[in-house]
Amino acid sequence: MENKSFDPAALEMLEIVKKEGYETAWERLEKQQPQCGFGLLGVCCRNCMMGPCRINPFGDDPQRGVCGATADVIVARNVDRMIAGGASAHSDHGRRPAILLKEVAEGKNRDYQIKDVDKLKAVAQKLGIDVNAEINEIALKVAEIALNDFGKQDEEPIKFLMAYAPKKRIELWKKVEEALSTNAKIKILPRNIDREIVDIMHRTHIGVDNEALSLLAQGIRAALADGWGGSLIATEFQDILFGTPMVKEVEANLGVIDPDYVNIIVHGHEPVLSEKIVEVAESEEMQNKARQAGAKGINLIGMCCTGNEILMRQGVPIAGNVLHSELSIVTGAIDAMVVDVQCIFPALPELADCFHTVFISTSEQAKFEKGIHIQFEEDKAIETAKKIIEKAIEAYSRRDKSKIYVPKQKSKAIVGFSVEQILKALGGSVKPIVDVIVEGKIKGVAGIVGCNNPKVKQDYFHVTLTKELISRDILVIGTGCWAIAAAKAGLMTMDAVKMAGDGLKSVCQALNIPPVLHMGSCVDCSRMLVLAGAIADYLNADISDLPLVGSAPEWYTEKAVSIGTYFIASGIPVHLWPLPPVLGSEKVTKILTEDVKELLGGYFFIEGDPIKTVEKMEEIIMEKRKKLGI
Amino acid sequence: MENKSFDPAALEMLEIVKKEGYETAWERLEKQQPQCGFGLLGVCCRNCMMGPCRINPFGDDPQRGVCGATADVIVARNVDRMIAGGASAHSDHGRRPAILLKEVAEGKNRDYQIKDVDKLKAVAQKLGIDVNAEINEIALKVAEIALNDFGKQDEEPIKFLMAYAPKKRIELWKKVEEALSTNAKIKILPRNIDREIVDIMHRTHIGVDNEALSLLAQGIRAALADGWGGSLIATEFQDILFGTPMVKEVEANLGVIDPDYVNIIVHGHEPVLSEKIVEVAESEEMQNKARQAGAKGINLIGMCCTGNEILMRQGVPIAGNVLHSELSIVTGAIDAMVVDVQCIFPALPELADCFHTVFISTSEQAKFEKGIHIQFEEDKAIETAKKIIEKAIEAYSRRDKSKIYVPKQKSKAIVGFSVEQILKALGGSVKPIVDVIVEGKIKGVAGIVGCNNPKVKQDYFHVTLTKELISRDILVIGTGCWAIAAAKAGLMTMDAVKMAGDGLKSVCQALNIPPVLHMGSCVDCSRMLVLAGAIADYLNADISDLPLVGSAPEWYTEKAVSIGTYFIASGIPVHLWPLPPVLGSEKVTKILTEDVKELLGGYFFIEGDPIKTVEKMEEIIMEKRKKLGI
Repeated sequence: MENKSFDPAALEMLEIVKKEGYETAWERLEKQQPQCGFGLLGVCCRNCMMGPCRINPFGDDPQRGVCGATADVIVARNVDRMIAGGASAHSDHGRRPAILLKEVAEGKNRDYQIKDVDKLKAVAQKLGIDVNAEINEIALKVAEIALNDFGKQDEEPIKFLMAYAPKKRIELWKKVEEALSTNAKIKILPRNIDREIVDIMHRTHIGVDNEALSLLAQGIRAALADGWGGSLIATEFQDILFGTPMVKEVEANLGVIDPDYVNIIVHGHEPVLSEKIVEVAESEEMQNKARQAGAKGINLIGMCCTGNEILMRQGVPIAGNVLHSELSIVTGAIDAMVVDVQCIFPALPELADCFHTVFISTSEQAKFEKGIHIQFEEDKAIETAKKIIEKAIEAYSRRDKSKIYVPKQKSKAIVGFSVEQILKALGGSVKPIVDVIVEGKIKGVAGIVGCNNPKVKQDYFHVTLTKELISRDILVIGTGCWAIAAAKAGLMTMDAVKMAGDGLKSVCQALNIPPVLHMGSCVDCSRMLVLAGAIADYLNADISDLPLVGSAPEWYTEKAVSIGTYFIASGIPVHLWPLPPVLGSEKVTKILTEDVKELLGGYFFIEGDPIKTVEKMEEIIMEKRKKLGI
Repeated sequence: MENKSFDPAALEMLEIVKKEGYETAWERLEKQQPQCGFGLLGVCCRNCMMGPCRINPFGDDPQRGVCGATADVIVARNVDRMIAGGASAHSDHGRRPAILLKEVAEGKNRDYQIKDVDKLKAVAQKLGIDVNAEINEIALKVAEIALNDFGKQDEEPIKFLMAYAPKKRIELWKKVEEALSTNAKIKILPRNIDREIVDIMHRTHIGVDNEALSLLAQGIRAALADGWGGSLIATEFQDILFGTPMVKEVEANLGVIDPDYVNIIVHGHEPVLSEKIVEVAESEEMQNKARQAGAKGINLIGMCCTGNEILMRQGVPIAGNVLHSELSIVTGAIDAMVVDVQCIFPALPELADCFHTVFISTSEQAKFEKGIHIQFEEDKAIETAKKIIEKAIEAYSRRDKSKIYVPKQKSKAIVGFSVEQILKALGGSVKPIVDVIVEGKIKGVAGIVGCNNPKVKQDYFHVTLTKELISRDILVIGTGCWAIAAAKAGLMTMDAVKMAGDGLKSVCQALNIPPVLHMGSCVDCSRMLVLAGAIADYLNADISDLPLVGSAPEWYTEKAVSIGTYFIASGIPVHLWPLPPVLGSEKVTKILTEDVKELLGGYFFIEGDPIKTVEKMEEIIMEKRKKLGI
């Protein structure tokens, strides 16, 4: 049991799971043992029907697929398709608020408004749009540039990347293209967010691209279109529509579930609907309905990255990260789980059926075999939100009290560290943060991103890594399920400052910030890029010169592969655990962990022990400091 | 040996392969035995790093992936990603001539011209463009509509589909959307060619779409965007730029290789470069150079679908279908193999190294571990073509005569049956073909598409199926590697008319056409859609009412999955062999082979014996005839 989670709330729930015989990801992982070694090494190919093929990792036959593909080609193709999956998820996410902002600007949607005019103007300014025009006019232009980045059919790099990435980095990308294109043309600057994904799917088709570096370069291109395109558009447009996150105190972990209330969990990644659910749930009408049903009111709770979105913007409490999604239902006190897209285990509706919980899917892109579906239409957002909340209130009356068990654990957390909030805390410029780095009070900054993965003890890597980093005066920022782990562990409080090294401690006290900063959901990794870019531009340096490192411990999604790739392609070394499926090719492994360093400054490294990971991270940071002469 | 190929030329070459110890797809397939049963059934999932997961096909544990995905979800996701791969390949192919036509119209590219003004005007007319304008103006508008279909970000169906699909079918698709959207929204009309692929990649990410029908509907949507979008754009724009194919006599099989000449094989799928190579190779300058090197001249030869493209338009002889690509090199008489994209076995350059053959890759999207790369730039097309031909002439002088063996086999074939050519043969209207179908002289039409797959005796299924069909008065049309098989087998000659049943025979004699019609490369399956649509519109009927059947025997690519899917979604029942990786899910199998029939008229059926396949096809055709009252 203790091997499964580092979170005591999870352990309590896992006891119930065991006693009652429920099934969660941990049990299913056990049933999947042993997992396919070919798949784990990346040497399984199913891209055509001459296969499936697999390469013998011990050097005996077969060493080639039926088409002749080597392990190098197969592994590189598989990595590319993972990036394609991840970048598609993020970019499709970004497309939604971009279309919504256009509709709002055109007056076609009246359920949403532009909440953050300052942010709109800031984005417009970056894009070179006249900010003295009428608000809707500005919004329309901003939306059109974004949608054009998804759809344009020329060879020019996407506008958002060119407007947001630091100057030196753009120069470097162009140089890398030249360096790689001595013979064949190899491009890494993305032309169009969707097209780079289609390009990957074409290249990885049987008999197209059959060279590892060429394949991986296209993976990088699609990942850059995600980080500086799709994900960034998601972040910026959500800020414009729903407000840029600012500092607030929230609560995290299963203890936020209150059995006296109608508990509604919103889970997934896109906040377009959940923002409305927050709004409608707070209405007197809905609270009254809940009271009429015998509850004290409605308790809206976030989960996973939809949770992060409304936590950051509205201060809605969060029940947990992705491995808490099943455990929350087992409390017996969740009346409705409302989901949009991504990381929604298909097992959830079946588990919900063991309780009174109504599982409600809402997205056109995400349906489930069980549960109910309430189709979300952006232009009927308030109506949809009402329908959903009413379903939850109905379910409340069907509760089986004998099944209710809610762990007490919950932690306070200070969240809301958008780039804008960080700059505000610093007095409007990155100078103070640069100064404390130069002075050595902070050695550097580590950016960490979700997920959970039942192959890793839940939250153990996240929390141990984070604690050790701050103890060594490395400021930790991050997003996604990592951020929820840190919040649950109490690392996002002023109390946690005492765990920091002396230098970082003094900075936190001076700025009145925790040593661990929540920057948002997993698409908000774009905020980390923007922050890094701002520091680089301030110093007239390249991102790869800065004492920055990244990590995706406990990763499991294709999105994480895309994020890691746009980080390394933006100049940031990235730690990964568990092992990515690349070890079946020495060449691909070498490109991603060594060769790419020369070209792009960033690279991947693999390490399964949190303390050793920190040692490596500190080593990288100290090396960068040395080069900077600080 | 006899189990490997039905083509005597292949058998001769396979003897040499065996004797000399070369390796081809057949040997590699043997080395891959036994292939993974989970992969073959479609129940292996590698879409996240909690996996790889696999479902026990015998009903024991595990029955769910770590996330909870069932076999139904896993199989449907895998089918969708195959469609995404195939549709990407076709649509990316279509994008290229669309961009090229725009550049030609704008005067930015002077290496290419608009060769077929009539076709341009016909396409423009379908799209509602004024055809009295200046040619470049028309071309620009046509290109812009196509590129807009790749990039637009609204919810309207793509313009090419709306302009080309028959009226009744469009109505039916809309009805199907309504019927499926009683609860959740399910759409099948594509909004944008690229976006439907990105949508698939998003939906198939862990924790997004978890319902088989919803997933498969999106697969259908992306496939329709391929068939009536990307592939159709490829066909139409290539016709505009390079000319619409018209009837001509050509030669097919390895016997077209002439050891006295510099033999250059062009292999792949996109004809943009190879059209120029044809042009430049015919020039006195290049022929002279070849003669100076001691050869009689240059013998340009096609292979696979690039071969089909220049065979159909320029009458260039074709050496074979995809399983001939390795065998052609083993003749020792190929001086250069020039490749663009798709179905180019990565084993080829290594095999070329056993000979003097220079393997030349040319596409930005397709590089190889060995061989040389000559980057093709559309605006330096003639220059690139020259460079390539010069490399071939150089290689000619390095031939090892002791290694040369060219089989004698070659067959004549009458090819060039574009829709325009068929209509011309019919006197400008589909009426004559409808009449002979109504009279029963022709029972119906079977449309067949490539590939080869070493799991099936090469060409055996293609040829046996085709012969049996024509003997039963079923006209056979088709594309891709099937068409090359039929050409090699002599089925595209007037001689073959004697193999036809009496009814078909009389029609062939009256119209002076063979009983087996070559309609082009695999993207040209769009020609079959257009022909079916024209007949349907003429009869004011739906495609599914017509006595048409499709088949992809010997299939192996993801493109074939996309083609099969857009055929069934357009109302045509489609035979498949070998087994597609779906049998691990009873639900997915039932949707694709049964349920979809009610909705869309088309459906898949599986059969491993050619004669039984014909029996089933005839049964379908006779059933349709009965319903039509003919």
